[in-house]
Amino acid sequence: MIDPDDDALRALETQLLAMPPVRALQVRVVGCLDGRLRLAAPLAANVNDKGTAFGGSLVSLMTLAAWGLVTLRLQQAGVPAEVYVADTDVRYRAPLLADLHAEAWLADGEDWASFLDTLRGRGRARARLLSQVLLPDGGVATEASARYAAIRKPG
Amino acid sequence: MIDPDDDALRALETQLLAMPPVRALQVRVVGCLDGRLRLAAPLAANVNDKGTAFGGSLVSLMTLAAWGLVTLRLQQAGVPAEVYVADTDVRYRAPLLADLHAEAWLADGEDWASFLDTLRGRGRARARLLSQVLLPDGGVATEASARYAAIRKPG
Repeated sequence: MIDPDDDALRALETQLLAMPPVRALQVRVVGCLDGRLRLAAPLAANVNDKGTAFGGSLVSLMTLAAWGLVTLRLQQAGVPAEVYVADTDVRYRAPLLADLHAEAWLADGEDWASFLDTLRGRGRARARLLSQVLLPDGGVATEASARYAAIRKPG
Repeated sequence: MIDPDDDALRALETQLLAMPPVRALQVRVVGCLDGRLRLAAPLAANVNDKGTAFGGSLVSLMTLAAWGLVTLRLQQAGVPAEVYVADTDVRYRAPLLADLHAEAWLADGEDWASFLDTLRGRGRARARLLSQVLLPDGGVATEASARYAAIRKPG
């Protein structure tokens, strides 16, 4: 699938910031390139008692990146559906002392065409997405593997 | 170990609310009974686009409950240490349309005495904690199994 355009990304950002806990994290939609959706949030709004990024904020940003990517794909395909996170496995690799930059993408072995076919045919579908928050040097601060469920809306 | 007293719980709440992303969630320390630490947060500050509790907030509250319980145990034992979350596996069981009530406790097969002995002897130790967010009817909205690492501070 082609990457969503700027209008779609701005609309997603507006949708995200309508949620009070997401607004508190000061999340921004940075871009979507080669099927990877990138979000960012400032450290100051997401800092813990040790001066590093709070674990809950790291999970929130990774969850929003993956949720956002599924949401964008459904919009592109013209399939109205609610998207839910079903489960998440998170590994915290290294403390992050800088702003949070997360990206999410579809896991190997999954494909959007099958996901959308299943959703159209059965009314619901699941997909696994991977996400990570990067260190300033390009290494990985935190990574997650999570399953998302979409349920088609009537109409 | 005996449960921490009200002064210790109030001090933990102050420590939690010093973190900007935790203050945004409006987290409260409810109590600690039989080794289970209970936290709460209002739905209004943690609501998603579907009117249910945001996944990131659910993980944050469960993480804070488990992190807080380890922190309280270390304080009771008089061992100054930093506590880090190492990994978390989360299962979202049912949407939550009410205020968030989380509790955390030490997993079966773990014990605080061994954890503290290892920390005193080697300077670091790990423990697995379980946590959940409850539905109003007593069922489980979300549950997590996570490992926490403590690293002793000098002095």
